[in-house]
Amino acid sequence: MKLNETDLKRFDDDGFLFLPGLFSEDEAQMLMDEAQAIYKQDREEVWRESSGVARTAFAAHTYSEPFRRLGRHPRLVEPVEQLLGEKLYMHQYKINAKAAFDGEVWQWHQDYGTWARDDGMPEPRAMNIAVFLEDVTPANGPLLFIPKSHKQGVLEAGHDLETTSYPLWTLDREAVSRLAAEGGCEAPIGPKGSVVMFHGNLVHASPPNISPLNRTIVYLSLCAVSNHITKFTRKEWIAHRDFTPIESLEDDCLRELVDNRAAVAAE
Amino acid sequence: MKLNETDLKRFDDDGFLFLPGLFSEDEAQMLMDEAQAIYKQDREEVWRESSGVARTAFAAHTYSEPFRRLGRHPRLVEPVEQLLGEKLYMHQYKINAKAAFDGEVWQWHQDYGTWARDDGMPEPRAMNIAVFLEDVTPANGPLLFIPKSHKQGVLEAGHDLETTSYPLWTLDREAVSRLAAEGGCEAPIGPKGSVVMFHGNLVHASPPNISPLNRTIVYLSLCAVSNHITKFTRKEWIAHRDFTPIESLEDDCLRELVDNRAAVAAE
Repeated sequence: MKLNETDLKRFDDDGFLFLPGLFSEDEAQMLMDEAQAIYKQDREEVWRESSGVARTAFAAHTYSEPFRRLGRHPRLVEPVEQLLGEKLYMHQYKINAKAAFDGEVWQWHQDYGTWARDDGMPEPRAMNIAVFLEDVTPANGPLLFIPKSHKQGVLEAGHDLETTSYPLWTLDREAVSRLAAEGGCEAPIGPKGSVVMFHGNLVHASPPNISPLNRTIVYLSLCAVSNHITKFTRKEWIAHRDFTPIESLEDDCLRELVDNRAAVAAE
Repeated sequence: MKLNETDLKRFDDDGFLFLPGLFSEDEAQMLMDEAQAIYKQDREEVWRESSGVARTAFAAHTYSEPFRRLGRHPRLVEPVEQLLGEKLYMHQYKINAKAAFDGEVWQWHQDYGTWARDDGMPEPRAMNIAVFLEDVTPANGPLLFIPKSHKQGVLEAGHDLETTSYPLWTLDREAVSRLAAEGGCEAPIGPKGSVVMFHGNLVHASPPNISPLNRTIVYLSLCAVSNHITKFTRKEWIAHRDFTPIESLEDDCLRELVDNRAAVAAE
């Protein structure tokens, strides 16, 4: 899948691109069923909120067939190859739960800030893809973006080890307010299967989920192979060290699993 | 202003009615300017967050001309008279700030639960009107509603004195989840000047505002005169004891103030 001129300009201007319904509802539901099975597993890659409910499952593409396929899906990999101009490897892969009532805040941050400081990634030639596995509404803790903030480079940040259960380099209010005065603050809202691609320097956050609706999102962080990380301070299943270029699968690679499951269920 | 059949049916079915842009942007802005002036005042009716920023100004209709007029506006008073079938008095009047970054959560609750328990209001023949003084977006802590939950009567609740700076009778998660399984969870989003009318038993909440955008809303709680409160446990500027029937003003009562200010500014 290739982005058109309008998409390319929007990404360049705003630092993100929202693609509602890029995956079908049944493709998203199949991945959601798999995510729920993963969250039940007792493994080190699954992190939990202080309440015990799952917050994040890391590196599911290495131990789950549906998520392996999602990590090589041409609707995700090819647009990022197009934007970064070379082959990619998977720098990070996580399934964030943001559970009903319990899902905690992610403070304002840039992902590349963490990749540079913690992982020694040379340039912001990496970016994120968010795949909604459940409907994202104004009620259930949507991602918030400051459009145009990706043009500011790496902003000064403090290492927050307290307010969330995942250490993060976060920005101060003055910086966020200043950027929002120019770019505003937007929350892409859409049905399960929708996708947001966003620049590694785009300032973003998400509020707690106080609603009775879960809100699970998969995040792929794809990095240009030549821009691979140089410091190995985090677990290898958090900041990956396998720089093998990703080869895309066919467009129907998830559809095939949906159809297989339907066939099994019908037997 | 009268509600039509479609509006009446929607209110009966869902327990709320969203009227985007009921007031013009300049009517809303004039009220917002006045709210900011009130928040600067050091008076007992202005409550603050733990950070010191204003959270709520009570009873502004008793000490501010623009808010006095809003409290008698025919676009607000007449529809509620129509729904409750008699003249109204003002039970409570507050301007809630939900400030950027600092605006705190309001947990899941029914307002009539508080009016009955704390104020001895005989029946749920009172309702709320929310007037947006700033744009409400998915980003800045919108009101969340559980549609149809107003048909459940007064639900069991616990008195929350801890998680927020305003004591509230709040519902447990099981009850909220059960109601949302039937009615879902909705967040009315719209520009400044928009209005939501909602039943006194409608279950609602609002998340913290972590965004850089303020979100100020005025809440009028209008009660049928014959249904006035019978217990006086709260300050009279929180739960009013003046049961005089409200006489609506003319439809241009706020417009007049906007024009006056423009005329003064032009001099």
